[in-house]
Amino acid sequence: MSATPELPIVDGATRLYGIIGDPIVQVGSPRLYTERFRAAGRNAILVPLHVLPDRFEETVRGLKALANLDGLVITVPYKARILTFVDRLLPMGEKVGAINAMRRESDGGWTGNMFDGRGLVKAVRTEGHAVEGRRVMLIGAGGVGSAIAVALAEAGAAAITISDLEPTRATALAERVARSVAGCRIVAGAPTAEGHDMIVNASPVGMRAGDGLPAPLGPLDPKTLAFDVVVSKEPTPFMRHARSFGCATLGGYAMMPAQVDEAIAFLGGRA
Amino acid sequence: MSATPELPIVDGATRLYGIIGDPIVQVGSPRLYTERFRAAGRNAILVPLHVLPDRFEETVRGLKALANLDGLVITVPYKARILTFVDRLLPMGEKVGAINAMRRESDGGWTGNMFDGRGLVKAVRTEGHAVEGRRVMLIGAGGVGSAIAVALAEAGAAAITISDLEPTRATALAERVARSVAGCRIVAGAPTAEGHDMIVNASPVGMRAGDGLPAPLGPLDPKTLAFDVVVSKEPTPFMRHARSFGCATLGGYAMMPAQVDEAIAFLGGRA
Repeated sequence: MSATPELPIVDGATRLYGIIGDPIVQVGSPRLYTERFRAAGRNAILVPLHVLPDRFEETVRGLKALANLDGLVITVPYKARILTFVDRLLPMGEKVGAINAMRRESDGGWTGNMFDGRGLVKAVRTEGHAVEGRRVMLIGAGGVGSAIAVALAEAGAAAITISDLEPTRATALAERVARSVAGCRIVAGAPTAEGHDMIVNASPVGMRAGDGLPAPLGPLDPKTLAFDVVVSKEPTPFMRHARSFGCATLGGYAMMPAQVDEAIAFLGGRA
Repeated sequence: MSATPELPIVDGATRLYGIIGDPIVQVGSPRLYTERFRAAGRNAILVPLHVLPDRFEETVRGLKALANLDGLVITVPYKARILTFVDRLLPMGEKVGAINAMRRESDGGWTGNMFDGRGLVKAVRTEGHAVEGRRVMLIGAGGVGSAIAVALAEAGAAAITISDLEPTRATALAERVARSVAGCRIVAGAPTAEGHDMIVNASPVGMRAGDGLPAPLGPLDPKTLAFDVVVSKEPTPFMRHARSFGCATLGGYAMMPAQVDEAIAFLGGRA
């Protein structure tokens, strides 16, 4: 999309949004959100904010104090760490225990919510696949893995097995989701394709050149749906592996449109 | 200028600059600087940062901690207050005791400098007027008044009388400039046109609708040059007063191009 000619790129009245993360150069949100703001005729921009882990608290405190900053998008590795900086959590953020967006309310307080998981559910359905009744193997129990576990359970998955390099993290997530969503059998366990008809990689394995599979999955049933959350222009090792057995695959880019739609509605919808 | 088609408005790799001030909606720097960055092919943007007086310290601390923020422009009322946040001052900033730009150096330290006054000197010369030998009445001894006093003295003005609503501020400025620049007679005194062939309004009077003259100036000699630092699309009361006596006038907009040129060279010229 080209720039709307009536709007300058930025001026003194531009309202600010930012995405905080480390690293930050790879994020697509500044372009995506800013294009949406401009398409809606809003004089607003979302800028990349590179927040260093050892300066996280002072940086976020300073950003929140900016009077023309209306909201933040949160990416790796801050989706859980940011929680102490919000005053209210919407239900999905509460269930997940992590957020990827927060907005300033008219009373000056900040509300957070999580949209990662619903983006995946929408992408699966948009591509013509069902979520209902699925037996899911979920690899990675961090912020995005947590969001996906809650969203899949709420969307009608029959069962979810969660694995993580830190087994206690997988167990804690399984217990939290089981408590907050009924009707889905959720357990922690080793990563395996057996007994599952959907495999989700919510770990960072596949982001870096030279990465292999997120787990030793072995041969896959061609009816297995493979979803790799990693945002990559090339198919990831996990996606190539799945395709070699004839499986349908979806990548991180597919999650974005629905996520951005929901997060923008949230960020612009000050209560 | 329209957007350079090759550059997105903003993406994850965009380098950040900001202007801090209160209020902020009226500032022209975001547009001016961002257009210059883009014309130079740089993926960089300058955004408005509305910093509240009672949250100044925590906000600036947070901004300086952002790893992709390379520099700040400083406007009213923070040009002197920001000094505690820079590690080094260049000579003009040192002499003025206030800065309007600071940059992060490659060693992580911050260097500040002041470009306000030189913009005025360049504007006067660009419009075909001399600075050398001028006897200047300067109204307003705040950040911009201080910068103008130093720059006019360095550029060869013969004499400067400085007035301010707070007389001690005028006296302190006159003494500081007299100490740091030789060859110009600098005193504090009441605002008067008599004995002066250039009058500079460096006070905020004229910014708001309903403002009158910054001082009761009375009739002016038509050879007097009137410079109003106030940035305004319409001629200010002071400029209208001067024009009614046939004086040449210059307004705040005239200072900007030279100021922006110098500040951009500084901000992009990390030592």
